[in-house]
Amino acid sequence: MLRSIEYKKDHVLILDQQLLPHETAYVRCATTAEVWECIRALKVRGAPAIGMAAAFALAVWANRSRLSTLPAFLESLERERDYLASSRPTAVNLFWALDRVMSKATTATGVEEAKRLIETEALAIQAEDEAVCKSIGEHALSLLADGDAILTICNAGAIATARYGTALAPLHLAKERGIGLSAYACETRPLLQGGRLTTWELQQAGVDVTLISDSMAAYTMATKKIAAVIVGCDRVAANGDTANKIGTFGLAVLAKEFNIPFYVAAPLSTVDLSTATGDEIPIEERAPEEITHFQGQPIAPAGTKVFNPAFDVTPHRYITAIITEAGIVRNNYAEALSRLKRTEHAAAQ
Amino acid sequence: MLRSIEYKKDHVLILDQQLLPHETAYVRCATTAEVWECIRALKVRGAPAIGMAAAFALAVWANRSRLSTLPAFLESLERERDYLASSRPTAVNLFWALDRVMSKATTATGVEEAKRLIETEALAIQAEDEAVCKSIGEHALSLLADGDAILTICNAGAIATARYGTALAPLHLAKERGIGLSAYACETRPLLQGGRLTTWELQQAGVDVTLISDSMAAYTMATKKIAAVIVGCDRVAANGDTANKIGTFGLAVLAKEFNIPFYVAAPLSTVDLSTATGDEIPIEERAPEEITHFQGQPIAPAGTKVFNPAFDVTPHRYITAIITEAGIVRNNYAEALSRLKRTEHAAAQ
Repeated sequence: MLRSIEYKKDHVLILDQQLLPHETAYVRCATTAEVWECIRALKVRGAPAIGMAAAFALAVWANRSRLSTLPAFLESLERERDYLASSRPTAVNLFWALDRVMSKATTATGVEEAKRLIETEALAIQAEDEAVCKSIGEHALSLLADGDAILTICNAGAIATARYGTALAPLHLAKERGIGLSAYACETRPLLQGGRLTTWELQQAGVDVTLISDSMAAYTMATKKIAAVIVGCDRVAANGDTANKIGTFGLAVLAKEFNIPFYVAAPLSTVDLSTATGDEIPIEERAPEEITHFQGQPIAPAGTKVFNPAFDVTPHRYITAIITEAGIVRNNYAEALSRLKRTEHAAAQ
Repeated sequence: MLRSIEYKKDHVLILDQQLLPHETAYVRCATTAEVWECIRALKVRGAPAIGMAAAFALAVWANRSRLSTLPAFLESLERERDYLASSRPTAVNLFWALDRVMSKATTATGVEEAKRLIETEALAIQAEDEAVCKSIGEHALSLLADGDAILTICNAGAIATARYGTALAPLHLAKERGIGLSAYACETRPLLQGGRLTTWELQQAGVDVTLISDSMAAYTMATKKIAAVIVGCDRVAANGDTANKIGTFGLAVLAKEFNIPFYVAAPLSTVDLSTATGDEIPIEERAPEEITHFQGQPIAPAGTKVFNPAFDVTPHRYITAIITEAGIVRNNYAEALSRLKRTEHAAAQ
């Protein structure tokens, strides 16, 4: 399984997801500016992967720094942090990862100790994300059987995380263990993350994957013995309502109609108890050109009016279960999610 | 409203739908070979439009023929008919239109009479199709109110028929009468008939149309006050099950969930009483490249496995009503469709 990010002490390798699936290439980043550019240009995508990239950028900067006094070192580190935080101003995970590293660094009593703490923390962020994904995969696998076909949308995969991914984690784990799961990947218009990335990632891992257009989901569910729909998420509200890539809500309605379980793979970090319900989640509307143009070429009449929401919200009543690293939540989402978040918080103290 | 086909006695003008929406151009066809090429190359699409094009091709050939004896004329006409029939071997409407013209021609007692009969019959096919579409539009309008927004898929429009279209007929009629209907057009992957053709056609007619990707249908129905989903059809089985462009079935399931009426606009010519249920309708699977490539460029990894059904079947229980030229059918589809078809057959005798 290819890694989205590899830390090499004096540089970090970032898988260029903009070149996928046509070319598999890593960008070698020896400076924060190079990592900043990778984040800005969406060469690295997926909240966990972005956070990791930024944390490793600070570690690489620290390893290369010649500053000898702690105040000067920390002051420069702070500037690098602010700079990296400006690469994608809406990425909560980015700030979270940067702040985790900064907090550790400021406990150091000397420059060398600070460098060690920064590297240790960046590696911990990566290791924890891998553990979270693996655990989600384990729980998801417990809901599936050898020979099952799952249907998914977008790319909630290994290349968006440290390893395994979230929705795709059971497929990767099953492959490692010789369990035969297969996948139908919705291409995910308008940006085709399913067609470009999920197909590529699963093929790399040797998982049997079939590509469909989003409009084929109903017919596929009706005719192809789909055992489960598994999707990732951008945010889970306190009551279990889930925001994810546009098209997810439709899949949930179809799954309900066809009596197919609909699962949301959700690290507890995406559960936001301060958001009471999905109604409070703002839905970003993106540029019309994403739909009217393809690779710069127009595919609709000039000036066509477009509605282009990037996400939709699936009400919790359509969700069979939310699969977190700490366990599977069914029904009573408000109570169960709140309990798991409290436990997570306590464990982190 | 632009016409898909215009008959000019010594030639026929065919709107080149392959150039849409970027260029509005007609192909001037003075020979059957030129019409054959237009049908083969999908410059003309939509069952009624294809039938009309072929019928007019025979009329143009007849007008230009210098053959002076009836047997020689009819023998050559037969060869032209067979040639045109080979342009798209699965298009039932094509054979139907050609045979209608041939049957009339063979009743003639001289060449000039044959030419007149051929032209009259070709024009009748066009006029009847326009009347059918207009009548479907009238019935559909009776189900809608000023200010309503409808959602549709593919292009069951004026350019696929003589005029007005089927699913789009109420929008065109409303526009003529100053009734304000608006439309959401699903782009209709993989071939984008919604994004390329429905947007263009409705814009030409001055109808307010908004383009969405197919994956946005659920969120659009949940948030945009959609009054009805109206779709065309390729075949309606005796029990009301309906085959139409892939994605239609999913829209029907969503419409049911959101309590939005789901209407099928169906000329009686598409109702096939010899097909008992939708299970008997074969679903064509098309080339993987339609999904893995875009305008010749790969958009998925090389060799990606694809499932590419061109149609799906919507079971009749999801259909609120079938709108035919002879009236609106609700429930009891088997009985009502059979009655309407008998009446149509009797009227044609």
